[in-house]
Parts: sequence; structure tokens; C-alpha cells
Amino acid sequence: MTTPYADRLDARTRELGNPCLVGLDPHFELLPEEFAVARDPEAPRAERARAVESFLLQIVELAAGRVPAVKPQSAFFERLGADGAIAWERVVAAARAAGLLVIGDVKRSDIASTARAYGQAYLEDAGDACCDAITVNPYLGADSIEPLLEVCERTGGGLYVLVRTSNPGSAMFQHHGEPPLVHVVAREVARWGSELRGESGLSSVGAVVGATHSDQIAKLRTLMPHTPFLIPGYGAQGAGAEETRAGFLGEGRGALVNSSRGILYAWRKPENEGKHWKDASLAAIESMVEEFRALFAKTS
Amino acid sequence: MTTPYADRLDARTRELGNPCLVGLDPHFELLPEEFAVARDPEAPRAERARAVESFLLQIVELAAGRVPAVKPQSAFFERLGADGAIAWERVVAAARAAGLLVIGDVKRSDIASTARAYGQAYLEDAGDACCDAITVNPYLGADSIEPLLEVCERTGGGLYVLVRTSNPGSAMFQHHGEPPLVHVVAREVARWGSELRGESGLSSVGAVVGATHSDQIAKLRTLMPHTPFLIPGYGAQGAGAEETRAGFLGEGRGALVNSSRGILYAWRKPENEGKHWKDASLAAIESMVEEFRALFAKTS
Repeated sequence: MTTPYADRLDARTRELGNPCLVGLDPHFELLPEEFAVARDPEAPRAERARAVESFLLQIVELAAGRVPAVKPQSAFFERLGADGAIAWERVVAAARAAGLLVIGDVKRSDIASTARAYGQAYLEDAGDACCDAITVNPYLGADSIEPLLEVCERTGGGLYVLVRTSNPGSAMFQHHGEPPLVHVVAREVARWGSELRGESGLSSVGAVVGATHSDQIAKLRTLMPHTPFLIPGYGAQGAGAEETRAGFLGEGRGALVNSSRGILYAWRKPENEGKHWKDASLAAIESMVEEFRALFAKTS
Repeated sequence: MTTPYADRLDARTRELGNPCLVGLDPHFELLPEEFAVARDPEAPRAERARAVESFLLQIVELAAGRVPAVKPQSAFFERLGADGAIAWERVVAAARAAGLLVIGDVKRSDIASTARAYGQAYLEDAGDACCDAITVNPYLGADSIEPLLEVCERTGGGLYVLVRTSNPGSAMFQHHGEPPLVHVVAREVARWGSELRGESGLSSVGAVVGATHSDQIAKLRTLMPHTPFLIPGYGAQGAGAEETRAGFLGEGRGALVNSSRGILYAWRKPENEGKHWKDASLAAIESMVEEFRALFAKTS
């Protein structure tokens, strides 16, 4: 029996002593010059996909042993069709082989056996390229999540349900009604997760809660006391480490904080002019790790 | 300049004289015996994917010239990784070459440039294997849809936004609040679509509205007067043609009604015992077409 995602997550976060999650978002147009073929629509897709893969494998190397997890973003891979799917699997497999947890950022949603098929695709069928967890969208309701819970129970995989996303327009629907929809979703997430609690006390059913709404994180933490949070919005999207604090349980446990652009494209920042992209990315990972270590050193 | 999706949809629906949409959902375990390798987890994925492809190409042949559109369901293809992605592209390309509109049922959702990447992946980058339209999930709000509208404007592609899904649990979040969230989403869908109206008067921004909530379709039609509906829930999910009527504009225009299992797996019905699967599927398509022709003959 595989150790449940909740416990693997908790162990890995404790071992590394930080909650940093490196988002693998290969925006073609932002890649360093040596991978420029990725953005050439005239180049064969196989070549473009190899460039994406090569860039991300190097990021995975930088992340391994420093942070607990990475989060590849499916959309960019899907732009390259089957070649992108090959690159996706190679990046996922390499990250897992390097001891990183992999959260597949796929934000899938569907009903019944189709929802189950999405869970199987990313948590069960892909061999060495299975993700540890995936992101999912709750709009369709409980019966769209339940088939995924079964897949998690069988495989030891995890879910992160979108609760409050980090984008400026997220309140439009997520804050509709009284109580706001996010609170209703949050209560359901806690309920769905109650059957999937690990020995760590955490559940394998997590929640995406944006750091850009830091005033609301504490309330969502109360509604979901055993739920691992995935917190986007740090760094390039504007929030600092302090704004994520209420998302954590004690000692920096129970949450991962994502940074994508701030790490992958650190070389583009004015202060990194002249630096090799890889040095800039490594420095960005180390500085994020330090920032969170300091945050929890202050707390304890 | 490509004709906008709205107008291609309207033309094709008028030409064929019916609103039937064949859902291409290759549930491995339901496929006819000759494609059984698809459900063998020990078989190479390439072989499994070829079986899925071969089955669906034959369904596409049956559908071509009889119904306006098909709707491949991505989840099952994704279970087969890169091989599934190849099969997806071949099925989409074959359907388009046969004159069918293709609605990629991907239910994607993300923000900003990532949302755009999903639009590009399915509406712009895939050459002959581009879909005519895709399904998307609105939970993240307007700024998750706007980048997709730009892709539609540039490519002539279309969207179907999930408004009220056909599953029994869909009310949980979709009917939260007063007015219920679906009404808020519906108004936004109408607004998003207002910039993408074609000469037909329809918009290229559609809505998914389940036939299993037939009491609500009329209200949603009022809130979205120019929005093409994609109506799931007919057939295997329990609704009849009559229950979809309020989703249409005059003369059977403005909506597509989906049937997946009822057509693909018609041979499994007791009354079709002994029939070849292909004969059963063809009869199911013809009977659905007739049912809707009769519905609109009565109306006019």
C-alpha cells in the first residue's frame, strides 16, 4: 500500500524545512534564448517540445533536494500535442525520480466515469510519470469529485480543489451569495477530505487558496483545519511570505507556496542583468527558501 | 478571415435539419469486443490508442452528413498519454474533414496567459486537428474567460461555458445564493458573447445547460438570448427531446443536443441484442435525428 499523499507531503516538507513549490510553467515566449525554438511556430513540434523539456529538466535539477515539490502546468504542454504529452511525462518522471513531489496543475473537471478517467490519467495510468496530486475544479459539485476520491484512495494520490484562486477576478463567482460560495466549497472540501486523513493528521484532499486574498486565508483555514493548502500568488503575482502565514498549520506545515515566474524567469529581472538564467533561478529558489525559513523561525 | 463559429454552427444545423451532437466518449470498458485491447492495461498504449481511434473513426463516418457536430471527450484520450493525444488529433481531423463541427470537450479552466494557452492549444495551434469550439469551466471568473475570447476572435473558434451541468449534484454550487449562481454565470456568458455575435445573430460563446433540469432551461434561455446551448443529459442520462425544447430558438436553431452512450454503445441495449454494433449505432443516430425533426415539425 502506497503512503497517502498527505503523509508523503508532510514528511517531505519537514525534511526540507520549507514549503516552497516551484511552478513549472513553460511560457514559450519567456524561455531563455537557448530554448527559443520552443516559440517558433514553424519549427517541428517535437523540437519545440524537446526545448521545453530540456529547460524544465534543468529547473527540476535546481529544485531537487531544496524544495519539497514542483507543479508542472499542463496548458503549455498541451499546445504541443502528443510531443508536449511526451515532454510532460518525462518532466514528471524526472522530478519524481529526483525525490520531488509532483502536483500536476491540470484543473480538470467532469462528472461520473469521466471525472474518474481524469484521475486515472494522472494518478494511476501513467507509470513512472504519475503525479502525486492534481488540481481540480469543483464547479460541477460533489458528484464530480467523489470519483476522484476513489482514485486517490486506491493510489495514494492527492487532490487540490480550487477554492479561492489568486486572479483579480476570482471574487465574481467565488464570492457570490451569503455565505460566499468559497465557504460552501471549503466546507465540502473538508468533508471530502475527512475519509482521506493520513497518519500526519493531514488529508490528501487539499485546497487552492490564493495569497492575494490574505485577509481571507485565516477564515478558510478554520473551515478546512486538516486540508493541505496550495497557495499561489506569491512573488510575481504580488503577495509576500507574510501574507501566506495564516494558511499554515504550526511549524510551517500544511501548506505549499507556489512561485513560477519568479523562479523560472528570474534572469529577466533588472537586478539579474548579465547573470546566466540558471544562476538567477537557483538564487531565486534559495532566496524563497530562506524567506520562508525566516518566517517560521520568527514564529517558533 | 474564418467564418465565426456561431455562423458555421447555424449554417450546419440548418443544412442538416437537426441539432444532434454525437459525443465521442471512448469508455474503454464499454467498447465493442473487437476493440477490447483498449481496456487491457498490459497492452502497449500505442495499440490501445489505435483501437480507440479505429472505433471513433467509424462512428465519425456514421455521423458525417447526418448530424452537424461531434464532441470528443478528452479524459479518455488523456489516459493513454502521448498515444492518446495522437488519437485525439486524428479523430478531430477526420471529423472536420468529413464536414462535422468538432466541439472539444476539455472543460479547461485557468487564468491569464495560461487560459490563453489552453485556447491556443485547441483552437489555434493544432492545424487540421483544431477544434471548432471547446468547453470551458467558469469558476475562476471573467478574467479566466477573457483571454479565451481573444483567441476566439482571432481564430473564429467558439466556447461553451459550463453553466448548469447535467449531473444530479450540479445544484450544490451552481444553485448557491440568491439569485442562484447559474443566473449570474448566465448573465456573464451573455455579456462575454456580445462581442462575438455573428451574422446569424448567434454568438460564438455558448453555454452548457443540462436537459436534466428542463424546468430551468427556459429561464436560462431568457438570460442568454443569443447564446448557442449545448444540452447534455438526453438519452442515457434520462431526458427526452421534449425536455430540451425550451433551449432552442425558433426552428430548431441555437442549440445542440448531445448523446454519447445512447449512440456509441447502442448495441449494449437489450433491444439491440444480436445486432452488429455499427448497425445499432447508425440506427440510434437516425432515430435521434428523426425524434428532433418530429419535434420541430410539430412546432412550426
